[in-house]
Amino acid sequence: MSKVISVNAGSSSLKFQLFNMPEEEVLTSGVAERIGLDEGIFTIKVNGEKHTQNLPIKDHKVAVELLLEALVKYHIVESLDEISAAGHRIVQGGAYFDQSVKVDGDVVAKVEELAPLAPLHNPAHLICYRAFCEALPKIGHVFVFDTAFHQTMTPESYIFPVPYEWYTEDKVRRYGAHGTSHQYVSQRTAQLMGKDIADTRIITCHLGNGASITAVKGGKCVNTSMGFTPLGGIMMGGRCGDIDPSIICHIMDKKGISPKEMDTILNKKSGMLGVSGISSDARDIEDAVHQGNERAILTQAVYVNRVINVVGGYVMQMGGVDAIAFTAGLGENDTHLRHQILEKMEECLGLSINYELNDKTRGKEVCISNPESKVQVYVVPTNEELVIARDTVRLLGL
Amino acid sequence: MSKVISVNAGSSSLKFQLFNMPEEEVLTSGVAERIGLDEGIFTIKVNGEKHTQNLPIKDHKVAVELLLEALVKYHIVESLDEISAAGHRIVQGGAYFDQSVKVDGDVVAKVEELAPLAPLHNPAHLICYRAFCEALPKIGHVFVFDTAFHQTMTPESYIFPVPYEWYTEDKVRRYGAHGTSHQYVSQRTAQLMGKDIADTRIITCHLGNGASITAVKGGKCVNTSMGFTPLGGIMMGGRCGDIDPSIICHIMDKKGISPKEMDTILNKKSGMLGVSGISSDARDIEDAVHQGNERAILTQAVYVNRVINVVGGYVMQMGGVDAIAFTAGLGENDTHLRHQILEKMEECLGLSINYELNDKTRGKEVCISNPESKVQVYVVPTNEELVIARDTVRLLGL
Repeated sequence: MSKVISVNAGSSSLKFQLFNMPEEEVLTSGVAERIGLDEGIFTIKVNGEKHTQNLPIKDHKVAVELLLEALVKYHIVESLDEISAAGHRIVQGGAYFDQSVKVDGDVVAKVEELAPLAPLHNPAHLICYRAFCEALPKIGHVFVFDTAFHQTMTPESYIFPVPYEWYTEDKVRRYGAHGTSHQYVSQRTAQLMGKDIADTRIITCHLGNGASITAVKGGKCVNTSMGFTPLGGIMMGGRCGDIDPSIICHIMDKKGISPKEMDTILNKKSGMLGVSGISSDARDIEDAVHQGNERAILTQAVYVNRVINVVGGYVMQMGGVDAIAFTAGLGENDTHLRHQILEKMEECLGLSINYELNDKTRGKEVCISNPESKVQVYVVPTNEELVIARDTVRLLGL
Repeated sequence: MSKVISVNAGSSSLKFQLFNMPEEEVLTSGVAERIGLDEGIFTIKVNGEKHTQNLPIKDHKVAVELLLEALVKYHIVESLDEISAAGHRIVQGGAYFDQSVKVDGDVVAKVEELAPLAPLHNPAHLICYRAFCEALPKIGHVFVFDTAFHQTMTPESYIFPVPYEWYTEDKVRRYGAHGTSHQYVSQRTAQLMGKDIADTRIITCHLGNGASITAVKGGKCVNTSMGFTPLGGIMMGGRCGDIDPSIICHIMDKKGISPKEMDTILNKKSGMLGVSGISSDARDIEDAVHQGNERAILTQAVYVNRVINVVGGYVMQMGGVDAIAFTAGLGENDTHLRHQILEKMEECLGLSINYELNDKTRGKEVCISNPESKVQVYVVPTNEELVIARDTVRLLGL
């Protein structure tokens, strides 16, 4: 029996889970939020109860120290020596990594080299990794890449129609994101269908504040909506997704905006926030819809339209689809948005949906289609931390 | 019987046809090319025979003068007084025009006002219009807008997920393009199907050097791939179409490229030219494919992938599709590319294609699907000039 910690660092957050493996028993979980801001929040779950501390968390190193302290303080472990290994989610693995790897100097160097492609994430991952190395010098580490699952795409899906030198010299191509989630959800969906994943065509809709849709044929990613960085693909909370690029050049030229400022607008002031003017949080949009706010209603309509167009494209590319699975914040919990997406896909796909069941399904593993539906539809809560822990155990031979 | 001239001006070209209406008899056709460059070309067809002049054509005004001179010189008309009206294609009608209109001062002012949204086209259209007014002061004029057919889109299709002020203040929205062609081809397709267009769902693929795909439900456009300007949508000869916008910001920042330079790269150095490094002309790509050039093969694969993903999205949005029609340069003539597109759509749509017929069909109106095909597939040569002449006759009551 080994205790393995899964580390899932965002640009300003650090989520973690401690597992007993191979039992897959969750000993604790928690999150450090608002890292680098004046008012940070650290939360850890002990025996099902949340303990929260409000304090500034200067950087990801401090976040790691806080979490290790808390493990001992709340007697989740008696000594940090009990921890055998750490698995880290890495956002950008470029074309180097098509699967998880045991960490060594070369791996670290490559993750560092790829930082320009994920400037908010890869450096944060390495700070966490180094903080763990310092605090627990004897344990093994595994990196699990968000891009690895998407490395099975063929060039027709990953090459952008821009100057080819941008690919060969500047590494511009589709890398995708949320790979760990798409992998977990597609595998779990095949299990729920009672099928060998080799015989399935599944579309996984990871709809969170960041969002991507993936076409999975025979267990392998054939296309995914996120592109060069997590800005591309479908519309998101604050991000625009793929758009006509002339808009960007036109507005930059007209308003004298720099590339960096434009990048910030497209990443943080667009998507649901941009259209609604209300919030990048789908829950706020949902509340406004219930109050009859027209811009909020429009926001959901645009979102639904963009989702169904991408799904339709993937159905075409795979030559059909056997199941569609929804996961992540909105995908698991925004029943109203999911309802609208399903209604718009019904006629084309021959769906028969149990809308009553859909409308009450939040964060649970449920088949929401009726048996006669031509395509099965599932809600499958994602579990990236579990995949990280499993890969860690497997690769370290624990 | 009236003689009506259809004027179709591009940024550096002017195509024209003179019709006897309402018989729709083509009296002559021709084109002025390379306007504004040192070596212009003027071509006119007389009794089926092409007459070509090589000479500098300073601007669109000179092009109009050339064509009017030629009409008399080649005895197509004995006097310019025989011409009753002129219909002009206008690329950008913004949200002002949802149909063709008789030209007056207000219409001209609006087309002028919209010039920033089509800086290469709208000013050229007005130069042509004014040259005709000067030479033939008594005739009536009609403007036929490339965007008008797309004005039936609802906001979920035309609003981009960017800051809403860009829509309200800067007019950033999806306008679409090639509307005259999509309208003609969808109507003609319904006729060929022997159906009332009100009962059809048709996807028209206008694949030329510029290219767009339109979903037409009940005769009305519900979505189209071109966006704010003709840069958006699918990959084209030299244009990239919709892409992950982070690519643009990243490359501009890294290489210090201005918005205008980037706009030029995305409009002229991307698409087929960008991926292949060979040419923006699909015929050159096709030749290279036959010589086994790998980048050319990749170019076609990326192109096909992007086309089928957009078509799949529209099938989803319309809840199904009854017919698909191909038109314009590539759509009518590039049998190999069309073959590949159809093969990739076969499984999903239940197509049964007569590939032998496809492979020999160029520029002719042909149904290339077999009767048992679940979706009918047509090649329908477009005829924007005829639509322009028809609208001109109708609106001027000739």
